[in-house]
Amino acid sequence: MANKLLLLTRENELYRDLLIQRNLTDLVILDDSPSSITEANIWFAEPALAAPLLNHAKQLRWFQSTFAGVDKLMALKQRRDYQLTNVRGIFGPLMSEYLFGYLLAHNRQHQHYQQLQQQKQWQPGNYRTLQGKQLLLLGTGSIAQHIATTAKHFGMTVTGINRQGTPTAGFDLVDKIDNLCLHLPQADVIASVLPNTPATQNILNRQSLAQLKPDAILFNLGRGNVLDLDALTAQLALKPEQRAILDVFNQEPLPCDHPIWLAANAIITPHVAAPSFPVQIVDIFSQNYALWRNEQPLNFRVDFEKGY
Amino acid sequence: MANKLLLLTRENELYRDLLIQRNLTDLVILDDSPSSITEANIWFAEPALAAPLLNHAKQLRWFQSTFAGVDKLMALKQRRDYQLTNVRGIFGPLMSEYLFGYLLAHNRQHQHYQQLQQQKQWQPGNYRTLQGKQLLLLGTGSIAQHIATTAKHFGMTVTGINRQGTPTAGFDLVDKIDNLCLHLPQADVIASVLPNTPATQNILNRQSLAQLKPDAILFNLGRGNVLDLDALTAQLALKPEQRAILDVFNQEPLPCDHPIWLAANAIITPHVAAPSFPVQIVDIFSQNYALWRNEQPLNFRVDFEKGY
Repeated sequence: MANKLLLLTRENELYRDLLIQRNLTDLVILDDSPSSITEANIWFAEPALAAPLLNHAKQLRWFQSTFAGVDKLMALKQRRDYQLTNVRGIFGPLMSEYLFGYLLAHNRQHQHYQQLQQQKQWQPGNYRTLQGKQLLLLGTGSIAQHIATTAKHFGMTVTGINRQGTPTAGFDLVDKIDNLCLHLPQADVIASVLPNTPATQNILNRQSLAQLKPDAILFNLGRGNVLDLDALTAQLALKPEQRAILDVFNQEPLPCDHPIWLAANAIITPHVAAPSFPVQIVDIFSQNYALWRNEQPLNFRVDFEKGY
Repeated sequence: MANKLLLLTRENELYRDLLIQRNLTDLVILDDSPSSITEANIWFAEPALAAPLLNHAKQLRWFQSTFAGVDKLMALKQRRDYQLTNVRGIFGPLMSEYLFGYLLAHNRQHQHYQQLQQQKQWQPGNYRTLQGKQLLLLGTGSIAQHIATTAKHFGMTVTGINRQGTPTAGFDLVDKIDNLCLHLPQADVIASVLPNTPATQNILNRQSLAQLKPDAILFNLGRGNVLDLDALTAQLALKPEQRAILDVFNQEPLPCDHPIWLAANAIITPHVAAPSFPVQIVDIFSQNYALWRNEQPLNFRVDFEKGY
């Protein structure tokens, strides 16, 4: 019996072409008409676009999210009578590029040397290196593991934080989230790649942010809800040597009247740290579709209880 | 019999303190008076400072360079009747920080997002990654090997160029320097970490530079003599999508009237890619001094014939 696939992304035409090229057995790709919502047994969709339509999805059995973040599908009243899979394993390298790009630009003083160049000034000195610096990673999943590997390659020491303090390969130390405040004062660089769950809500708040070193660099790359943005904005104004590099926000787009836009020691990017490249997403779907047809367990299943 | 050490660096007091802390057996650290030049059997020195004084070094047996680059000691008329050792193994991580800092800043569009932030504009899109990009490394020594490892970690493919095309671990491909022009048109990123030798003189010249991709990024991190700076300046003016990131120059400081200072697609830094951190240099010296006292072969000996 044919499987019927609904595409619900901002790049449906691109995905349709990529999927047709794969020539997947017994897969009918439905058109974009409303009736496809009731008809499809497989959804290939962005969580935010799909969430309001889920109740009409009469045949839905498997939902392949095109994003890593699936918090939009986790609301208590949402149905959970289908298999949800997301995309993993492809974001670590991209997140690492983003994090180390900005970290090295700061640590190796790109702005300083740019100003010297503009003045045609040859003035070496004040050398810095990442070697020996302390990275505190909130999260120890596949993205965090990749970042940890990069950090070790650059000679940093890496502490990871997860729910239970479960030891994880590639970290010098892992501790549980309740002990976060023990580690914040030691960290030169703090990076959150945590998902949006009730347990991670606002853990970077006024009290915990106050623990940061005077010249700490804070990255938020996972989800906006981890961070109290107003508390951070107030703190950055008082601590000009601190830096924040933020790619995710509770409200996206970040409202244009938020004062963090203009903070001299903040870098704001529009959720671009780890874009989903369509070919990679289609790879993941195709592998999962083969498992689906053989009635084998799918890759990257999301646990509705944990929320990731 | 005591060994007599001459310090000849721009940071003699710092090095004197660090060496005294090591409490090295039978080592007398001479003062900075001229008579020390004739008296010392071991020199711990910067090549450029030492070169004009070498003929007065009546007792010189071993010269520990505090730099990796020893070309100032290689002139044909210079004496070669002593053991010369340089510092190695500590620059790879620093060079990698420099190269990937600037490469990621370019590839991940730091300037573009900075402009968007100044306009409070939330505008994702136009994603890029280092994954799949081609890096061409001129040089396959310890620095190049470290850079190659970093590049592979970021998902790049890496071709190395050395004198004979000698295969080297960590590279996807190694070819000889005579075949350089076969590889230039394929490279997204070209980085030279070559030493200054007659064989490397001006190999990046008008003809070879013309082979670069329209959006290639060129790094010079080794020695200035590898590159015809005027030819590059002319080319950058004609090819605005190309980028050059230059840390070393034939004449340092780079003369303030050189037009490359103001090229919009050039980044000029004052020879800061891989600074020598004194503690690391003193580590290398101390290990070598132990070998010296035991009459064992020293680490990191320079071959006067090859020039490195």
